Amino acid sequence: MLTYNTPVDDIRFLLGAFGYDRISDLDKYQDFDLDTMEMMVEESGRFYEEVVLPTNEIGDREHVEWDPETHEVTTPEAFKDAYEQVAQNGYIGITTSPEHGGAGAPETLGVILTEIASATNKSLGMFGLLSTGLIRALEADGSEEQKERYIPKLASGEWGGTMALTEPHAGTDLGLIRTRAEPNDDGSYEITGRKIWITAGEHDLTDNIVHFVLARLPDAPEGTQGISVFLVPKYLEDGERNDVECVGLEEKMGIHGSPTCEMEFDGATGYLVGEPNKGMRSMFVMMNEARLKVGIEGVALSNIAYQTALNWAKDREQSRALDKEKRDPDAQADNILVHPDVRRMLANIKSSVEAMRGIVMWAAVNLDLSDSHPDDEVRQEAQDLVDLLTPIIKAYCTEQGFENVSEAMQVCGGAGYTRDMHIEQYLRDMRIAMIYEGTNHIQALDLVGRKLTQDDGRLYRLFQSRMSDLIGSVEGYDELDEFVEPLKDASKTLTDLTMRLGQKAAEDREQAGAVANNYLEYFALTAMAYGWVRQLKYAVDQKSDNRETKFKTARFWFNHILPERHSLEDVIGSGKEHMMAFDRDEF
Amino acid sequence: MLTYNTPVDDIRFLLGAFGYDRISDLDKYQDFDLDTMEMMVEESGRFYEEVVLPTNEIGDREHVEWDPETHEVTTPEAFKDAYEQVAQNGYIGITTSPEHGGAGAPETLGVILTEIASATNKSLGMFGLLSTGLIRALEADGSEEQKERYIPKLASGEWGGTMALTEPHAGTDLGLIRTRAEPNDDGSYEITGRKIWITAGEHDLTDNIVHFVLARLPDAPEGTQGISVFLVPKYLEDGERNDVECVGLEEKMGIHGSPTCEMEFDGATGYLVGEPNKGMRSMFVMMNEARLKVGIEGVALSNIAYQTALNWAKDREQSRALDKEKRDPDAQADNILVHPDVRRMLANIKSSVEAMRGIVMWAAVNLDLSDSHPDDEVRQEAQDLVDLLTPIIKAYCTEQGFENVSEAMQVCGGAGYTRDMHIEQYLRDMRIAMIYEGTNHIQALDLVGRKLTQDDGRLYRLFQSRMSDLIGSVEGYDELDEFVEPLKDASKTLTDLTMRLGQKAAEDREQAGAVANNYLEYFALTAMAYGWVRQLKYAVDQKSDNRETKFKTARFWFNHILPERHSLEDVIGSGKEHMMAFDRDEF
Repeated sequence: MLTYNTPVDDIRFLLGAFGYDRISDLDKYQDFDLDTMEMMVEESGRFYEEVVLPTNEIGDREHVEWDPETHEVTTPEAFKDAYEQVAQNGYIGITTSPEHGGAGAPETLGVILTEIASATNKSLGMFGLLSTGLIRALEADGSEEQKERYIPKLASGEWGGTMALTEPHAGTDLGLIRTRAEPNDDGSYEITGRKIWITAGEHDLTDNIVHFVLARLPDAPEGTQGISVFLVPKYLEDGERNDVECVGLEEKMGIHGSPTCEMEFDGATGYLVGEPNKGMRSMFVMMNEARLKVGIEGVALSNIAYQTALNWAKDREQSRALDKEKRDPDAQADNILVHPDVRRMLANIKSSVEAMRGIVMWAAVNLDLSDSHPDDEVRQEAQDLVDLLTPIIKAYCTEQGFENVSEAMQVCGGAGYTRDMHIEQYLRDMRIAMIYEGTNHIQALDLVGRKLTQDDGRLYRLFQSRMSDLIGSVEGYDELDEFVEPLKDASKTLTDLTMRLGQKAAEDREQAGAVANNYLEYFALTAMAYGWVRQLKYAVDQKSDNRETKFKTARFWFNHILPERHSLEDVIGSGKEHMMAFDRDEF
Repeated sequence: MLTYNTPVDDIRFLLGAFGYDRISDLDKYQDFDLDTMEMMVEESGRFYEEVVLPTNEIGDREHVEWDPETHEVTTPEAFKDAYEQVAQNGYIGITTSPEHGGAGAPETLGVILTEIASATNKSLGMFGLLSTGLIRALEADGSEEQKERYIPKLASGEWGGTMALTEPHAGTDLGLIRTRAEPNDDGSYEITGRKIWITAGEHDLTDNIVHFVLARLPDAPEGTQGISVFLVPKYLEDGERNDVECVGLEEKMGIHGSPTCEMEFDGATGYLVGEPNKGMRSMFVMMNEARLKVGIEGVALSNIAYQTALNWAKDREQSRALDKEKRDPDAQADNILVHPDVRRMLANIKSSVEAMRGIVMWAAVNLDLSDSHPDDEVRQEAQDLVDLLTPIIKAYCTEQGFENVSEAMQVCGGAGYTRDMHIEQYLRDMRIAMIYEGTNHIQALDLVGRKLTQDDGRLYRLFQSRMSDLIGSVEGYDELDEFVEPLKDASKTLTDLTMRLGQKAAEDREQAGAVANNYLEYFALTAMAYGWVRQLKYAVDQKSDNRETKFKTARFWFNHILPERHSLEDVIGSGKEHMMAFDRDEF
């Protein structure tokens, strides 16, 4: 029951709907027009379906293994072969600039490949995802020498990357980290400390592993203002083994093919990236890339679980249709797709996937605009949108992704709970995404405390102007009225909530913390409503083949998913009062 | 981090709030007054915490094992010892009548013990749960000889019970079953067929296993009107091995300590229970008992996950308090219980657990009234309430239980995803409860199609009269106004929804199927709002010690959980239209 078809058609449609032409119009990306993109998605999709997908269950069953003697980590044999092919096909460095050995494709393609890679083997996909993130951080803040030395090896997949942030006492709160960096005479540093939750911290897929490590210089200021970032390769330039070791693996609920390492840096040699004490800035380049892509895991696993459940449902006969006219007179039971509740569950997931994929594509196109558009203002606005959408996509799509996979399991009844069906693996693998790369509450605080407050609400005003522009642009599209009206209403309410939140946050930060998660969800629903109207407008303009189905899917979403905002509005309105009322011992 | 404290205080409080005195006032239960019950809960709680809880992880790690040669199933060693002690303490037969070797305790105690047993080891608990269910079915429909032969052995735990309903092509749709029962000359039957998903179908905890098997007599009418039920023991009276074997185990996401068996009945000897072709009625006695208890699993796992997360949170320091006055000046980070979002998550689970446990206790007391009250009318009304509440408790508490355990994981961040923390096991173990004993949609159809339609809405009218009685009884309780007003509103809306549903269901059954799940959730929220007002009234009347905390918890629930009804109302209003609009190929 291993089922996955790369959603090529929907991806092409969404590229069009979210203005990918603005990217292919850039000189830099003239080789990546819509047809080429479609061809590349199709081709890579076929590869991931055929080569990578079959390794997913193997990773889950065999787990990665840690040897307490050698401190080495072994991945399943099947991973080595699949990883090598991923690397050889150039997928890891696909968006890396050609001068550093990459294919120079737009970030949008990287985003699309993330969905395909995560759907077919989330654990394996994470190896490449970290390398891509590190490349991006080095492109932003690395020295020329560092770029030349590290990026080509990371892009080719010969070397792997990691993010080494967390310490046992410092997870969410990075200001607390204690790992030390002492300067050596040759300009390098000696890194000492222990890091936990290091994905791909040690493994046998690559010749070298490059850790991107947060540490404190001597006399660095306290908190996040005193954190620097270092490159710490497992093997040094001269081939010598560096003093960094994996001292254990976490036993987890899922992603068993992904080593979650506890790493000991025992006076390891490291190289400062960027300026001293500005490490959080560089790490955020990597982290923001990773957050967007973790959000995409929610789309990816929702979709493969949906396809699996749909495939199963199409074959299953059980109970008679409630509408007698739909009964098959020659059978004792009808195919379960006749049952309203089976349809409800499938439509929940389907409409959710397309809504989420829409705003992901919106963010992706803006990521490219922010990198590559010649106009400063366009770049800044695009960056603002990416900054705003990143925590929303990370938090909403992972939480909804978990619910979607669970819903797909429910479609299959008891069979869904068995390993044969694979959905149970997707559910276990999915759950971590609500936690890693900053828990979803951290995303909500980022949205409320950092993104909304920038420059007196510049990002939010931009978001609202995009809403108004779109609403203005569909005047006279009568068939869109049923969607535009709720969008207007959601958008207006979101503005009200945002203003009240801004006032509260200024005088009482606990209020903002208390409502942040629900506010983020309201924001996500509004952004997706906007995304749907863009999708439908494009379908109408293009008279696209999927037009009728898109309207049905949107209609389901507006009537079954968007109404969640009513409860959210109510709960947000109740503020912090009721949770803060408890004394510590009353919990 | 294995944490569980039996919630003795809340149980005692709820026994009072939901009128347990009406049970202990019965002659039959005069030995089980409130103090005795509390003592028994305390004592059994201690036993389950000390003896059973440590076996939970063992079952998850070791799994049950099936031998393809002998077709026998082996449970972990630790299970055998724990099961023996459970049996010796008389917990399996605790509610069985003394004439059949039980302790004759009220069903209410059985319900309470189910919560404790499920929290400490859900897999192990299921063995006993099935025996209890079979006892109940035999008490209702077994012959005197069957009662005498089987009940004492089941009650003592020497023998185990099973429910053998599902076949590969017949899960939800039992009308399709094909297992045959051919009469023998001696009055017994020869049973032939294959059953799947048989919990505890084969194992080594008991000397004998008694299967309760649905099968068709020759020339039985088609559908559920032609199903009879048979007792098929693994070992016959003369000690001979019966022709029933386990031919395989399911590999599942969780409940690894519980064997989910595929059973082959190959001309096995069976004994008819009750009348021919009336097997579904007897099976429903067992199923309804099981459904209520599966719902309780949601309360149980929510609670142990909550306690685990709370325990962890109390020790964890991370980030500074948003309110500067709450910061510990001597520390770099504050205990996470200062953070509004951590409190929000914990209060979500805590208030949900107490709300759910409330309506479970309401059902439990009515179960005893329906069995044992001398007045016919009281018995009938109590039975009506149990009938109404059973699908609501099964579906709502399992779905919410899964969300609650996931929320508890989120409180713990990355640690929550590791096996060390145990919550990931609770989450995997929890998920099946939304599926087994009739998927949650089957519960919703039971509510909408069977319970609401009985006698022109008799059950619903009774429910409404209970609401009005309570609302009338708290006139003048000014401190309850903030809860009574939303209860009135929810109750009125529920009545509107119910009437509209009744009209629709009559003319268009698809409409009822389409909205059934959301309607059930609305009903559950209303029932819990009722339950809260009962709890608070009792707290006020008794001036109970927990009064202030109960008010805070209720206030949180009314402001953070109950508002879900607004979205539900909207979605229910949209009916079947949007899910039925898709052509089959559009999914």
